[in-house]
Amino acid sequence: MALEVFHKDETLQMRRKLIGQSCRLFFSRDPVKIVRARGQYLYDENGMQYLDCISNVQHVGHCHPSLTQDAAAQMDLLNSNTRFLHDNIVLNILQNLFFFLQCFYEANDLALRLARQYTRHQDVIVLDHAYHGHLTSLIDISPYKFRKLEGQKEWVHVAPLPDTYHGIYREDHPDPGQAYADTVKSLIDEAHKKGRKISSFFAESLPSVGGQIIFPTGYCKRIAEYVREAGGVYVADEIQTGFGRVGSHFWAFQLQGEDFCPDIVTMGKPIGNGHPIACVATTEEIAAAFTASGVEYFNTFGGNPVSCAIGLAVLDVIEKEDLRGNAVRVGGHLKQLLLQLQTKHPLIGDVRGVGLFIGMELVKDRASRKPATEEAAHLVRRLKEERIVMSTDGPWDSVIKFKPPMCFSIEDAERVCTCIDQILRESAISHQYVQIVTSLALGGTRILVVLESGIVFLVCRVDYAFWQKQELWVSPCDYNKLHSCCQLPRQSHGLHISSPDGTK
Amino acid sequence: MALEVFHKDETLQMRRKLIGQSCRLFFSRDPVKIVRARGQYLYDENGMQYLDCISNVQHVGHCHPSLTQDAAAQMDLLNSNTRFLHDNIVLNILQNLFFFLQCFYEANDLALRLARQYTRHQDVIVLDHAYHGHLTSLIDISPYKFRKLEGQKEWVHVAPLPDTYHGIYREDHPDPGQAYADTVKSLIDEAHKKGRKISSFFAESLPSVGGQIIFPTGYCKRIAEYVREAGGVYVADEIQTGFGRVGSHFWAFQLQGEDFCPDIVTMGKPIGNGHPIACVATTEEIAAAFTASGVEYFNTFGGNPVSCAIGLAVLDVIEKEDLRGNAVRVGGHLKQLLLQLQTKHPLIGDVRGVGLFIGMELVKDRASRKPATEEAAHLVRRLKEERIVMSTDGPWDSVIKFKPPMCFSIEDAERVCTCIDQILRESAISHQYVQIVTSLALGGTRILVVLESGIVFLVCRVDYAFWQKQELWVSPCDYNKLHSCCQLPRQSHGLHISSPDGTK
Repeated sequence: MALEVFHKDETLQMRRKLIGQSCRLFFSRDPVKIVRARGQYLYDENGMQYLDCISNVQHVGHCHPSLTQDAAAQMDLLNSNTRFLHDNIVLNILQNLFFFLQCFYEANDLALRLARQYTRHQDVIVLDHAYHGHLTSLIDISPYKFRKLEGQKEWVHVAPLPDTYHGIYREDHPDPGQAYADTVKSLIDEAHKKGRKISSFFAESLPSVGGQIIFPTGYCKRIAEYVREAGGVYVADEIQTGFGRVGSHFWAFQLQGEDFCPDIVTMGKPIGNGHPIACVATTEEIAAAFTASGVEYFNTFGGNPVSCAIGLAVLDVIEKEDLRGNAVRVGGHLKQLLLQLQTKHPLIGDVRGVGLFIGMELVKDRASRKPATEEAAHLVRRLKEERIVMSTDGPWDSVIKFKPPMCFSIEDAERVCTCIDQILRESAISHQYVQIVTSLALGGTRILVVLESGIVFLVCRVDYAFWQKQELWVSPCDYNKLHSCCQLPRQSHGLHISSPDGTK
Repeated sequence: MALEVFHKDETLQMRRKLIGQSCRLFFSRDPVKIVRARGQYLYDENGMQYLDCISNVQHVGHCHPSLTQDAAAQMDLLNSNTRFLHDNIVLNILQNLFFFLQCFYEANDLALRLARQYTRHQDVIVLDHAYHGHLTSLIDISPYKFRKLEGQKEWVHVAPLPDTYHGIYREDHPDPGQAYADTVKSLIDEAHKKGRKISSFFAESLPSVGGQIIFPTGYCKRIAEYVREAGGVYVADEIQTGFGRVGSHFWAFQLQGEDFCPDIVTMGKPIGNGHPIACVATTEEIAAAFTASGVEYFNTFGGNPVSCAIGLAVLDVIEKEDLRGNAVRVGGHLKQLLLQLQTKHPLIGDVRGVGLFIGMELVKDRASRKPATEEAAHLVRRLKEERIVMSTDGPWDSVIKFKPPMCFSIEDAERVCTCIDQILRESAISHQYVQIVTSLALGGTRILVVLESGIVFLVCRVDYAFWQKQELWVSPCDYNKLHSCCQLPRQSHGLHISSPDGTK
């Protein structure tokens, strides 16, 4: 199989012409062409190696030989559908101790149908900034998407994200789990006042698009109580977090303790290591209510022997290579290294996470916790130059997210932290407030300033309050822009600046 | 890879316990365990061969070695996602000459979003009995499903199925294409009167669940004109019918002539030969309108290098093995054989189809065209005993559907027709009206009758009108029931029958 048919520029040109522009590329200004991968490493068309810190889908590592072998063997034998009997689907369930399973890609859409059929209620409570998928029905329950598109439907209720770094209750609250759960209770009460009925509380067990959030203690259990009292069910979306990513447990919802269990669990991405496969597990009662409608559920591809063979191989590799143990060890070390970096770089506002699900949040300053969106983007771009593939998440894209393949090593963790340290140190002006000597509004939010160091500086989207105080907080990112965009001499103390109309 | 881990009975038992009962099995009373397949043949756990007449998903044949080889090679190299550049997705599009493509499983859901985003209208016109998928949004546009579930939404308009055998305009109408298109025009006018706006007409290019329907000439072109006049678009669902199934053309919509082209085409099943992959093709204008929303479209698995490698291999096999030519030759021969059977068996009311998409409709009698549902089920069960896997479709499950892998041979066609002939002949009383000597209503629709041949017969769901006329039309299926269920002597002329309360 040829690694490359077209030159990278041609591929890019054809892609731009042939594929919808809403399908975006990583590093869109200078996208990467990847032709080969193994474990946690990607290789471009020139054989250059990249460390992959974000491909949680390739859970046990890219192109794991066991998976390829089992998939090819099953593809050669049989790839039919679930209307015939086959052992692979049953084996998959047995290994996971599910009550019930329906394999398919549209796990969250089915969860929604199951919850509604069982409860006979329509309304859904979701978390702010949540993302549950790009289907019409899932955009409706994803504030991350519907805020940019159709808006909020009347049957959707949005609860605050239980983010103890940015949210309404923070790390200094005595019981943020209870406090945030009570916001869900209030939503239920309000819905009831309007005569509406709650079918489900729907949440990722660790919100990822929301910014790699770890739920406070007791949160899920309380919500489950409130929602069940209202006749609804608790749906745990484990599509990104299941299959041992958190290390200590197989499912992320288990972090909430032994006395909490969701009514419906949806799973996807890691289960097939890149092969499209997904599942829904639920209770016998909910499954029975779904069956009672009398309508067949058939999914053309769901649960087919090849998908299930791959699912089995994934479970096997997680076990044999002790990938959960690895997530505990490497994830723990990575978090420690990031916490050390936090002591050196004021830009790092928060480090949170568990196992190999870690977020490092960048802030303009630690007092205001104002998100450092541009700085995060800059860090990702610079890491790419160091051949490390990283990405951001969170409402302001200010959280550097780590969700690497589970074979990520101690050396990988050290390499990426060394690079982050270096990038944050490389700016001559690091994070601090600097005195503005003189400044000039250029219209909009653009301001031309002269700093006390004598640097002339074009600032976009400046915080007006800081400007009024004749102070400016300059990030490494803005500093780099100074050199790359303005190209003014660094030492130009006392420079006079004229606005277009000649006023000073 | 082991062919079997559990004994068939154990597999069945575990499946019943572990998998939602709404996931049904073929031949539920005595399901088949299939452990191996090749081309158009399936093999059970005892090595027994079955001829597969229905697996249109395994388009180029089960477990085609070229596909396994290409898939394994790509799985070993790279399986990432479309946020990195890769040649396979571009190559797939180039070979199909699409304007634009987004790969994913939820093709019809995306088509709905594209149509709405482009037209800024909400309403959809669909065909009666249509099935476009099991997602929440697609159940809404599938009368086949929503009639059994939530019911019809106010934004959905259902047009009559243009079925010239059963529908409101039949084969004797001078221009059924125009007449049926006018029913769509009427729906548009009615919708406009209510202030509603049409986003799309959404239809399979050959309705399959609807009963293997072939659109009359001129139908699609007229509808496209009407729908575009109303500011909507024409969506052709080619998920079952694309990739050369009709033989003469690559897409089934092309049967409607050179002067018709849909605005959006969705494709799925055959594109990956059992591997989950799907696509949407549309115009640059519609794609641009979707992009203009500013929201990214990302599908975790869609367009990944492995899926695209398999897509390329499928296109390659279709070409190299001249599978379109085979569909023309074998499909033509199969249709001829079925038409010959029709001259011998009154049960066969209609034979229709093109290429390897053929329907044989069974009727109680040809005058009333009353669907022979039980007889069709009986034929399918008996064919299974002859190791032929067949299935029914249509509003009354009375259409025997042929959608075999495209490598189906002349010998396969002859074998299946010989078996059908034999099964229809094997009943001593073939399709005819017989005089009722005496009869007794047993409550509900059950009637105990003595036929002129002296046979005592329990008839369920008898047509009351026929009973009143002291006539009964006995099918091979009912006749078999007589032997298997009633176990009464065949010669019992003049038998007195008593009802439970002693009346004669």
